[in-house]
Amino acid sequence: MTIQNDYLKEIQELKAETTPTQRATVPSLEKILYTPISVLDHGFIRVIDYMGDDSAIVQAARVSYGKGTKKKTMDRGLINYLMRHRHSTPFEMCEIKLHVKLPIFVARQWIRHRTANINEYSARYSILDKEFYTPQPDVLSSQSTTNNQGRGSVLKGTEAERVLMLLKRDAEQCYASYEEMLNENELGDPRDPSKQGLTRELARINLPVSFYTQWYWKIDLHNLFHFMSLRGDPHAQYEIRAYVDVMLDIVKEWVPFAYEAFMEHKVHGAYFSKSGLDVIKRMISGETVSQETSNMSEREWGELMVKLGK
Amino acid sequence: MTIQNDYLKEIQELKAETTPTQRATVPSLEKILYTPISVLDHGFIRVIDYMGDDSAIVQAARVSYGKGTKKKTMDRGLINYLMRHRHSTPFEMCEIKLHVKLPIFVARQWIRHRTANINEYSARYSILDKEFYTPQPDVLSSQSTTNNQGRGSVLKGTEAERVLMLLKRDAEQCYASYEEMLNENELGDPRDPSKQGLTRELARINLPVSFYTQWYWKIDLHNLFHFMSLRGDPHAQYEIRAYVDVMLDIVKEWVPFAYEAFMEHKVHGAYFSKSGLDVIKRMISGETVSQETSNMSEREWGELMVKLGK
Amino acid sequence: MTIQNDYLKEIQELKAETTPTQRATVPSLEKILYTPISVLDHGFIRVIDYMGDDSAIVQAARVSYGKGTKKKTMDRGLINYLMRHRHSTPFEMCEIKLHVKLPIFVARQWIRHRTANINEYSARYSILDKEFYTPQPDVLSSQSTTNNQGRGSVLKGTEAERVLMLLKRDAEQCYASYEEMLNENELGDPRDPSKQGLTRELARINLPVSFYTQWYWKIDLHNLFHFMSLRGDPHAQYEIRAYVDVMLDIVKEWVPFAYEAFMEHKVHGAYFSKSGLDVIKRMISGETVSQETSNMSEREWGELMVKLGK
Amino acid sequence: MTIQNDYLKEIQELKAETTPTQRATVPSLEKILYTPISVLDHGFIRVIDYMGDDSAIVQAARVSYGKGTKKKTMDRGLINYLMRHRHSTPFEMCEIKLHVKLPIFVARQWIRHRTANINEYSARYSILDKEFYTPQPDVLSSQSTTNNQGRGSVLKGTEAERVLMLLKRDAEQCYASYEEMLNENELGDPRDPSKQGLTRELARINLPVSFYTQWYWKIDLHNLFHFMSLRGDPHAQYEIRAYVDVMLDIVKEWVPFAYEAFMEHKVHGAYFSKSGLDVIKRMISGETVSQETSNMSEREWGELMVKLGK
Repeated sequence: MTIQNDYLKEIQELKAETTPTQRATVPSLEKILYTPISVLDHGFIRVIDYMGDDSAIVQAARVSYGKGTKKKTMDRGLINYLMRHRHSTPFEMCEIKLHVKLPIFVARQWIRHRTANINEYSARYSILDKEFYTPQPDVLSSQSTTNNQGRGSVLKGTEAERVLMLLKRDAEQCYASYEEMLNENELGDPRDPSKQGLTRELARINLPVSFYTQWYWKIDLHNLFHFMSLRGDPHAQYEIRAYVDVMLDIVKEWVPFAYEAFMEHKVHGAYFSKSGLDVIKRMISGETVSQETSNMSEREWGELMVKLGK
Repeated sequence: MTIQNDYLKEIQELKAETTPTQRATVPSLEKILYTPISVLDHGFIRVIDYMGDDSAIVQAARVSYGKGTKKKTMDRGLINYLMRHRHSTPFEMCEIKLHVKLPIFVARQWIRHRTANINEYSARYSILDKEFYTPQPDVLSSQSTTNNQGRGSVLKGTEAERVLMLLKRDAEQCYASYEEMLNENELGDPRDPSKQGLTRELARINLPVSFYTQWYWKIDLHNLFHFMSLRGDPHAQYEIRAYVDVMLDIVKEWVPFAYEAFMEHKVHGAYFSKSGLDVIKRMISGETVSQETSNMSEREWGELMVKLGK
Repeated sequence: MTIQNDYLKEIQELKAETTPTQRATVPSLEKILYTPISVLDHGFIRVIDYMGDDSAIVQAARVSYGKGTKKKTMDRGLINYLMRHRHSTPFEMCEIKLHVKLPIFVARQWIRHRTANINEYSARYSILDKEFYTPQPDVLSSQSTTNNQGRGSVLKGTEAERVLMLLKRDAEQCYASYEEMLNENELGDPRDPSKQGLTRELARINLPVSFYTQWYWKIDLHNLFHFMSLRGDPHAQYEIRAYVDVMLDIVKEWVPFAYEAFMEHKVHGAYFSKSGLDVIKRMISGETVSQETSNMSEREWGELMVKLGK
Repeated sequence: MTIQNDYLKEIQELKAETTPTQRATVPSLEKILYTPISVLDHGFIRVIDYMGDDSAIVQAARVSYGKGTKKKTMDRGLINYLMRHRHSTPFEMCEIKLHVKLPIFVARQWIRHRTANINEYSARYSILDKEFYTPQPDVLSSQSTTNNQGRGSVLKGTEAERVLMLLKRDAEQCYASYEEMLNENELGDPRDPSKQGLTRELARINLPVSFYTQWYWKIDLHNLFHFMSLRGDPHAQYEIRAYVDVMLDIVKEWVPFAYEAFMEHKVHGAYFSKSGLDVIKRMISGETVSQETSNMSEREWGELMVKLGK
């Protein structure tokens, strides 16, 4: 990741300034405020602002005049209860604002989640940096033969090298053309005075979706959980899961009780269909059940066995 | 407005505690944090939390690493530009959380705005206080004869007295029945041990919509502006406008530049249709235009004259 | 339920007219189009319009040029797969529009679901009918002693009679005052010419939340499933569940495959937390697990046993 | 635009089938149902389904049992009134579903509008066609010197040719690498049996944002108006305005009264700030106002003059 020096200076200025507030404050989150956390080869997540803490969830659930409950353990129990029973609105009372740098193809998956506020860096208005995503060799995989949306085994030697060469070569050529078409030097003057330069909003159409964009993204905790649950799922693309991993660490610092309840009830829990539940009940009562006697398709049975760790 | 003593104590505790933060902080909003501001006879608005300030709007619009711009006046100009050109997303980067006490009939209009987070006090779970709205004599109006949704002149002596008596008498009787049906004393024990007591979720159906409810309400600045624009409009019901008035004061403290741009471009500006614009152009060029020569209906012409202050 | 004669005539006119369309059409839903289906004592649901069918879900999932798949059984399998794997967007491609008459207290729970379009009958503008909800004796329950949001046993003889009398007496008195304050006869003329009449938007604040309102409500199938999942849950209030029951019947006619998948995966399935899943695995492997050895609280253990039908 | 023959066959099959329905039907929209309407060089819009007509807007506004009003002219007047007074909810009661083929960079602007349902063709799952956008010479413009987001004059001869060559050359090379990395022939078998082939979700990151994607997009009429108002604005990028132009034609066929009101009040109307309104009033009263005496900045004054056609 490259954060240029003047950006680092701006960040340090922000971190240096401290003001007193009566609002709910989370010291462990304050520590990492503004600082970029690396994701992939050029990406990052920065926490810009946050509203609320664990206690604010309880406070909202109780529509109370003061803080949450009197005791930390009561807050914890109530948060667990709210998560368990799908009482989602109190979690909406916490909000977080992130500055994210991410490849365009990741941004395109990300933005499918509509319940968030977004301000994206505009390539109609500004010029994009020469930064594009290149996968590390260990995630450079073949197509899965069993799952159309999945990855199979890692590519071997020559083929991997060839792929990385192609990705790099094409991205660089596209960017060189982008610069040539723009015809602007660093001062905004024409590089070649005999040319007019193509408008930015058209020049950028030459850039592959591996190029990095960035945005401010603001979301409430309930919808962040929903986002992380879907995009942190093993079926989601590796590159977006890399961002979810960082967000999970952030949420753990921010609202530890809510994080704990989320892991317990959403991430490490499992959902069973009526048929799956029937199989479980029969198994518990000592019966030996097979796919043939289960009333489930081969595929669903396979999914059930994975959930049961078999 | 009645805030019981134990609530006041909780509020004072919250206000007494101050922590340092690196986040954007607005000292003039901190001053009124947590404190209830009276609305109508028993209602209030309390600011519980906020995220961002004027500078945060600019910061998001520029997807910047640091704060807004270098100079306050540049922030002001950019915010004016964003408001003028309907660039609404940067305003979504500020968020506010309010605790509101309001009559049910106001809550029913309020909740029509869907882009907000809400936690309402549950009358399935808890018992509502004996607090209902009674209009002040100066807003106790007759039905408008020209506008089906509007108010006409103020009711006179005997009729006004009779109306107030009826509203009070019925609300009190409904509440007395509510208490009798619940059959609970202050300790939660049966008032009449020979009775079971009706479940809360049914007993409350006896209460008129003049009774007060309360909720936590969290919204971003752009959607708050939209809410205030619609519900602060002269055509909105007086009782909800009373809440908007208080919110305007709060927003003025919180984000003064955005408030100024909102007043300039939304509240005190005006929209003209194609036909209205044609009339204006003709008038400016010195022509005398009447409704007959305007290509507008009588009603639309009337609305145009109001906008032009004629 | 009372639908006045002139309304019935309007409905018959709508049903009599048939036009050819190339759009996806569901004959079994056409049969019940426009006809009110009774709910509670004065409420109803009418299907006003719909968009799409089972095949449209598949068509959208495949972003196809024609219909869904070639075979009905493939559509069925794919819909089951989409529901199982939380691919919710294809279900959003079906839409339904309902006309609903419902008590205000039910409307207040209903409207908490924000992803829908609503047009409510305005009591600022029009006069409400004298129709209020009175519970049937078999749902007139006491407060649950174990669940603050639940109902306990049915009220007995005298107490039940007294409750029904109070509900009826207060509602009728409130409505009588409403009429008196409005001072309008059926022709819109003053009943008492010496009085001005209170504006409608204020007179209605005297009406209890048991009174019926009505609205047009439009929602996509995914969000309808979400609504029915939450409001059809045994923990939801009986009166809103009565509406969900009718909606389930409608959905069954409209999109039978999606309905089937919803019942299998959402209604009759169950979610288990990490701890619950651990217990299940241990039980399946033949171990005897009790609450004490389960790592779960008494309450969570109880919920787990209910899910396992023990 | 290229629609392959088998797609045309599927479309013809859909158009051939007609069923009777009691729902609101719009014959002039039925005519163009399913048929692709060309946009840009390879894009299209197809109307897949619709719900409601002009009358349905009135029906919802009145929460009525039958159709809209008795007379067409009353419907027209009421729709005009609703649009004029920002009563947006009745317009939400109409819904349209489109199948759109569009360049990725247009899709990225489009999806910023969150109040819609979307199913996009997945390049994780399927292989994208070799179709990319190349601007026509008459829209191949230089960067505007006065507006950072705008276009200036059209590029001249050699430079234009060079730009088109670069766009074409890079897109073709990127697609060739895409195919090589995928290593799949038309039957899904390996082109080079000695290679594994890169997983689709990674191979596609090499494609520029000029490549075409496609999606199903469903939206209600109010939000469609909002979308068209923002993206049909002269400040929006030409390529997305090309889609808005086609949508305007569709809406004109579908809901002619609503279309008329939209053009009158939103497209051809204008908004004036408080300062602008003051200037207008002074001008109408015969005063000569200049920027210096206007209390407006040079930029705002310029915008005002444009609105007044000066």
